[in-house]
Amino acid sequence: MPEKFDIVRRQNHIVRSVYFFNEGDGKNKRLFGGKGAGLMEMTKLGLPVPPGFTITTEVCNRYFSNKCRLPEATMYEVNRNISKIERRTGRKFGSEKLPLLVSVRSGAAVSMPGMMDTILNLGLNDKTVKGLANSSNNPRFAWDSYLRFVQLFGKIVFNIEDKEFEAILTSIKQDHGLTDDSEMSERLLREAVTKYKGICQRHTNRQFPDDPYKQLQLAIEAVFKSWIGRRAVAYREKYNITKDVASGTAVNVVAMVFGNMGTDSATGVVFTRDPTNGSKKIFGEYLVNAQGEDVVAGIRTPQQIDKLAMEMPVTFKRLLRSCKRLEKHYKEPQDIEFTIERGKLYILQTRSAKMNATAMIRTSIDMVNERMITRKQSIMRIQAEDLDQILHRTIDASYTTGIKPVASGIPASPGAASGQVIFDVNRAISDSKKGNQVILVREETKPEDVPAFFSSAGILTSKGGKTSHAAVVARGMGRPCIVGCAKIIIDYSTKKFSVNGRTVNEGDIITIDGTSGNVYEGSMPTLPPKLTDDVRKILDWAGDFKTLEIRANADTQESARLARTYGASGIGLCRTERMFNAHGRLATFVDLIMAETDDSRRATLQKLGVLQKQDFKEILQIMGGCSVTIRLLDPPLHEFLPSLESSIYKVSGLEKGGDTPAMRDAQRVLQRVRDLVEVNPMMGHRGVRIGITHPEIYEMQIRAVCEAAAELESEKIKVHPQIMVPQVGCKKELDYIKKIYESVKSEVESRTGIKLKISFGTMMEVVRACLTADEIAGAVDFFSFGTNDLTQAVFSFSREDAEGKFLPQYIEKEILAENPFQSLDTKGIGSLIGLATSKGRSVKTALEIGICGEHGGDPKSIKFFHKTGLTYVSASPHRIPIAILAAAQAAIEHGQPKKRARMLA
Amino acid sequence: MPEKFDIVRRQNHIVRSVYFFNEGDGKNKRLFGGKGAGLMEMTKLGLPVPPGFTITTEVCNRYFSNKCRLPEATMYEVNRNISKIERRTGRKFGSEKLPLLVSVRSGAAVSMPGMMDTILNLGLNDKTVKGLANSSNNPRFAWDSYLRFVQLFGKIVFNIEDKEFEAILTSIKQDHGLTDDSEMSERLLREAVTKYKGICQRHTNRQFPDDPYKQLQLAIEAVFKSWIGRRAVAYREKYNITKDVASGTAVNVVAMVFGNMGTDSATGVVFTRDPTNGSKKIFGEYLVNAQGEDVVAGIRTPQQIDKLAMEMPVTFKRLLRSCKRLEKHYKEPQDIEFTIERGKLYILQTRSAKMNATAMIRTSIDMVNERMITRKQSIMRIQAEDLDQILHRTIDASYTTGIKPVASGIPASPGAASGQVIFDVNRAISDSKKGNQVILVREETKPEDVPAFFSSAGILTSKGGKTSHAAVVARGMGRPCIVGCAKIIIDYSTKKFSVNGRTVNEGDIITIDGTSGNVYEGSMPTLPPKLTDDVRKILDWAGDFKTLEIRANADTQESARLARTYGASGIGLCRTERMFNAHGRLATFVDLIMAETDDSRRATLQKLGVLQKQDFKEILQIMGGCSVTIRLLDPPLHEFLPSLESSIYKVSGLEKGGDTPAMRDAQRVLQRVRDLVEVNPMMGHRGVRIGITHPEIYEMQIRAVCEAAAELESEKIKVHPQIMVPQVGCKKELDYIKKIYESVKSEVESRTGIKLKISFGTMMEVVRACLTADEIAGAVDFFSFGTNDLTQAVFSFSREDAEGKFLPQYIEKEILAENPFQSLDTKGIGSLIGLATSKGRSVKTALEIGICGEHGGDPKSIKFFHKTGLTYVSASPHRIPIAILAAAQAAIEHGQPKKRARMLA
Repeated sequence: MPEKFDIVRRQNHIVRSVYFFNEGDGKNKRLFGGKGAGLMEMTKLGLPVPPGFTITTEVCNRYFSNKCRLPEATMYEVNRNISKIERRTGRKFGSEKLPLLVSVRSGAAVSMPGMMDTILNLGLNDKTVKGLANSSNNPRFAWDSYLRFVQLFGKIVFNIEDKEFEAILTSIKQDHGLTDDSEMSERLLREAVTKYKGICQRHTNRQFPDDPYKQLQLAIEAVFKSWIGRRAVAYREKYNITKDVASGTAVNVVAMVFGNMGTDSATGVVFTRDPTNGSKKIFGEYLVNAQGEDVVAGIRTPQQIDKLAMEMPVTFKRLLRSCKRLEKHYKEPQDIEFTIERGKLYILQTRSAKMNATAMIRTSIDMVNERMITRKQSIMRIQAEDLDQILHRTIDASYTTGIKPVASGIPASPGAASGQVIFDVNRAISDSKKGNQVILVREETKPEDVPAFFSSAGILTSKGGKTSHAAVVARGMGRPCIVGCAKIIIDYSTKKFSVNGRTVNEGDIITIDGTSGNVYEGSMPTLPPKLTDDVRKILDWAGDFKTLEIRANADTQESARLARTYGASGIGLCRTERMFNAHGRLATFVDLIMAETDDSRRATLQKLGVLQKQDFKEILQIMGGCSVTIRLLDPPLHEFLPSLESSIYKVSGLEKGGDTPAMRDAQRVLQRVRDLVEVNPMMGHRGVRIGITHPEIYEMQIRAVCEAAAELESEKIKVHPQIMVPQVGCKKELDYIKKIYESVKSEVESRTGIKLKISFGTMMEVVRACLTADEIAGAVDFFSFGTNDLTQAVFSFSREDAEGKFLPQYIEKEILAENPFQSLDTKGIGSLIGLATSKGRSVKTALEIGICGEHGGDPKSIKFFHKTGLTYVSASPHRIPIAILAAAQAAIEHGQPKKRARMLA
Repeated sequence: MPEKFDIVRRQNHIVRSVYFFNEGDGKNKRLFGGKGAGLMEMTKLGLPVPPGFTITTEVCNRYFSNKCRLPEATMYEVNRNISKIERRTGRKFGSEKLPLLVSVRSGAAVSMPGMMDTILNLGLNDKTVKGLANSSNNPRFAWDSYLRFVQLFGKIVFNIEDKEFEAILTSIKQDHGLTDDSEMSERLLREAVTKYKGICQRHTNRQFPDDPYKQLQLAIEAVFKSWIGRRAVAYREKYNITKDVASGTAVNVVAMVFGNMGTDSATGVVFTRDPTNGSKKIFGEYLVNAQGEDVVAGIRTPQQIDKLAMEMPVTFKRLLRSCKRLEKHYKEPQDIEFTIERGKLYILQTRSAKMNATAMIRTSIDMVNERMITRKQSIMRIQAEDLDQILHRTIDASYTTGIKPVASGIPASPGAASGQVIFDVNRAISDSKKGNQVILVREETKPEDVPAFFSSAGILTSKGGKTSHAAVVARGMGRPCIVGCAKIIIDYSTKKFSVNGRTVNEGDIITIDGTSGNVYEGSMPTLPPKLTDDVRKILDWAGDFKTLEIRANADTQESARLARTYGASGIGLCRTERMFNAHGRLATFVDLIMAETDDSRRATLQKLGVLQKQDFKEILQIMGGCSVTIRLLDPPLHEFLPSLESSIYKVSGLEKGGDTPAMRDAQRVLQRVRDLVEVNPMMGHRGVRIGITHPEIYEMQIRAVCEAAAELESEKIKVHPQIMVPQVGCKKELDYIKKIYESVKSEVESRTGIKLKISFGTMMEVVRACLTADEIAGAVDFFSFGTNDLTQAVFSFSREDAEGKFLPQYIEKEILAENPFQSLDTKGIGSLIGLATSKGRSVKTALEIGICGEHGGDPKSIKFFHKTGLTYVSASPHRIPIAILAAAQAAIEHGQPKKRARMLA
């Protein structure tokens, strides 16, 4: 045999396929996968890793390109490395005396928890099981292991569903009046093994493979195949894991160690720091006399790791040392799988711990203080988008006083959420598509349930601990989650759960508090989040690195205050029309639109002017000297009137009553609505186009800004309003409005004797403005890109129409990778923004350029804006922290963009 | 005095202000104005021009920049030149014996007929009038001249309205029982002069200026001021005469010659060729014993020029010689003003004759045949847009048999038009804005009526001849016009006219035929125009020069045939949805939209497929081998259903009847309309976005194209369909449809055994497609810009909304110079098209690139498309001749654009 393979090798010049753990480069995750590289790195660090080897991802790719056949040389190399394990362990593959068992594990470059397959106890057959029984002195353990192996092998290699095996086990237990697996005798286990193998034979029409080498080859191929399994592919799509990032999975073959060899054995998971809050305290769970999957599956409720210190103090100390060593090496908190076999510690896997945002922030600060990482590194390791989690809503305690929760569980992922109880994974997805808030309620969750997590506002399970599947996934996504809520008895068939004598039906509303673990009936009021000191510190650090200014979209006093609290350096978008809609002012504005004479229009405008001035004064005062960009009236006038549909209904309803005053009123409104109705109202007669046909409205608004500024300045309050014209397409539109602005401003200045500091600028939300930005720049102090409208104009569809009609299909059919209204289309809109920016700056180097669309709060888009050299982004107040962090990361990653000019103060 | 001015001149280094006619450069229209340059040129040619001089346009500009004060040196130079005239004529300014009289005429670089002012007989006062009376031996003539002078001077210098003078004249006539001015005696004229001067004194609080030099200065200033008069400014805006083209007016001071010195005197206008049809035959009118304005005003009906040959044969021969000389010199038919003073001919003015398109084409061909001009020159002198005139509708004779016109007048501008009779100029404008067809009916028209010409479908006057104001203006604009329709008695006060005993009220419909001069009551059916041999010849010549291909937008057999007749080399846009709307097929398409099951949808699609295949076969066959670009379904589905408004009305109307089948039907339709209704339907769910959500529709259409092509090819009929996908924004949309296309095509090919020649391309009407044209180009054989949609997306307003709501104000307030939906916005949309073209060609040099929006038939836009290097433009069939001519002109003017690639055959 060896000769034959050697010849093949020489002929094909095949690259090396297999690396023993002490041979590979632990940095090369692309080749060895995350798990393999970790095992290699740990081996190098001298940690107690069981001997084993890694088959590279490159083999995986050759496997697929070779029509799912392993390269011939691979099994030759595998077998040589098995011999190496045999030498290290003193056991032998297929030995009836001291048999070597191995696990076969997947491991791609990027962690895809639970998405691919693992086979344990490989190497067992009717002969080696005896060797295991003898050598372990525990025949029951040996046959239990054998049974587990056959089931796993059958499931993964032959695609046989678990329930087929479980049905057999159940019938054997019933036959013998047993209720628990642990009560099964060796004899019954043997019987089960035979029957399990029978199932496999029925499925494959072949003998169950007894040859360990054959088993190994089948297992390796099965792991490779799991890379293109439905779940794995879905996961990669969801998280946008492209081929550049991870191409194929590696396979790790590791000597088995057993946590289930008695009470001196155990298996567990340990985090080097607490992943729920980041505190510097080992955190984890273990099960005595168990194998790894028992912990992850959440079936038995595990022990807290602290208990290990008392139960196995020496091993615990060894574990602590390993944790320290690994964290120091990787400069990241680690998530470590370990097994204790008869008192001896083995580290089976390590990876960077998945943590929620609070924990990431806490550990970032701690590791900087411990001089483990730099501030830059501490900023870069936090996902900006994850900050959204820390801005969690909490249940308003003032409402819950006296209200007792119906149940309490283990708080696994913080935040409060209300929603309809849904038990079924598919229904959770479909209901959420309908716009319902869903709380997914399950006994436990499995990897195939992950899609439903995306659709749920919160997750509640009756089983499992803090490291159970539900807990890990929910934490990663920032979804509120309670696990192990044992009092809840779920009946899937009748679609209800009972808890303490009450019954909750599917569809009923509950509220879960993932911070406290409490479950409430009905919908509880929640409070907005507050920034912790930790977050403030990280944002402070981020502030030192970022070059983009972060401003807020804020139209009210409350949101202006929130913007300042969250660290905005100004208001980048204050929508004046929101003020018309507020505080019962709508009626006055409607009067303006319905006004038939110039006199009545003027009177209404004066009323509105007084109100607007007051609005502006309040916001300008809150922002004390920071830029406040006030956008003149933008939406079309008909937006303030009832819809055409409701107007027609009203008229035709009233028609029966004949010619009444109400009828005449309704007809008058309908007529005006008809006058104003547009084919494409999202474009059309709005923004500056109203400013030009109804200059009196813009004049009123400009006057209100000027007078507000003058009055505040006269009270020695520094202010800096920026007047922004929306919907501009041509320079002449700006010229027209600028004349009004200049005459009103100089009139107010000469009347008050106060020199006003006001900037005059334009939205860049019309494609033509971008194409002629050099001309436009001549008329203004600043540009502010309106990426919502630009996206609409560049794609030729509006957000409303697209999301309701065809965008879901576009994403599904992969025509668009993302919703361009959420994350900027850098190729299309981005190139237009780049063009306009360089055209604008070519004329005015000091031009202030910002963006104030939804994309201002999207980290990926912010990176683009930084690279393009914008002055600022303006985001919703609650996304300001995300924007600050994203801006800092962009600056760290890409440096200062060339020719970036800040506004002239 | 001379010393003083000489000093000023030396001090200020002032450029020369005044040129005697034999001194200036007759080519320099910018400096001397068209009229001045013409007089200079004619003087040089030795033609009998009265002596005179020109004050330059440069003085006009200095006059305005100097706060409306003449440069001091100017009047000095003027006076020196007056002396020159005195020497030439032997007359003296202010002389009581042989007084010199002059005319003071405006004249800008560009002809603005009737827009600015002229004063005649200047130099008359109570003393010189006697000299004129004595020297002419005609006191009545002298006082009549004096009276005319005072009125003109009062009107132009003092802004006194004509009606004030006319009231006096009327009262004098009434006092003496006279009905006609010619009956007034010298005594009465004297009385009138005194009273006219009294009016001037009342208006100015000053004596009427008697000093001829003072009169001259005031007149010069008045002419300068007329440059910025309301009418002149409006005219320049309308015709887009910018400062680059004409800046200020010159003033021409010319020795008066008199056509009203008796029956051996006359005045007239002569065209060197017939401006109504271009035939090589002198054409013109004159009045014996009259001054020039009598001809132009159209008050007296003049004689045909032929009669002059009999009345004054010697002078007529001299006139003919002058005509020949001038035409040969200018290489353009001339429009010449002449006066005969006591048998002596004077040429007062010459300019290129304004002609209608038929005449321009005729003369172009003739002048080429006469070797006067080259073919290139013959093409360049025709305004492409004017070809629209020759594509005039004519009244369908089969309908008018037996119908007698109510009146007949002088046919002054060809073409037939129906519309509501409107007498008031302002109402003509406002009614036309409401969308009404208007026929303007007046006794005569004046320059201030020109705006109403733009708003009218046709013009009918009861007075005047072929060279009257109404005739000239209407011909220039290509509006049907009948003048001198004397039977029509207009009563402005009761808003009606009577004709042969019938009464026509304002608002009644009439039809005028400007080709025959007939006026009909009611609306007559009209026929589409036919191409004459002349037009064919010019288009042939143009075809040799143009490099742009001209294709047609055509959806029906009739329009495809018309397109070929007019010279289109293919169909650039065949809208498949028009076919759904036609021939009662709408119901089937609505079935498709309303279909609730896949089965019913499939059945309907199959039915439609059969119909479409037949459509395509017919059009492809007509176009025999030429490219036929078939656009897949474009509009949103709801466009085929009733509107939301009508659906609601229907439902609420039926509601009263309870739950009837009709009610249920109406509700079902309403529900579907509601499902489909969009915020911005002009963008949104349409085009390729329907193709992706409803691939079965596109598949049906693609199959219909492929099968139509295969069936024709099997009959040995060569065809070349091009399948075009509308509304594409991303390459992946094209990839998706292309897969369908390729599979359907290869299926049809393998079934029929025929290799199909079909191209696959995309509309470029979404901004994103243009921005990413390099990517898009990878997927297609051709681009076709949809400039209507691009204009909408780049400006962020739709044609419908803009034209109804704010575009008129935008034009009026000069924010936009033109309606961008009519003439391409080259700065905005143009730069995007340029970008997309170079991006596309950077990837595929041979990419076929066309445009199929409305702009494809607009000459100015065509010039841009030529320069940009497009392969073709596609225009409405009736604009194909215009497009061919414009493309030739663009090629002659700009040569072959660089890197222009033709389609691969």
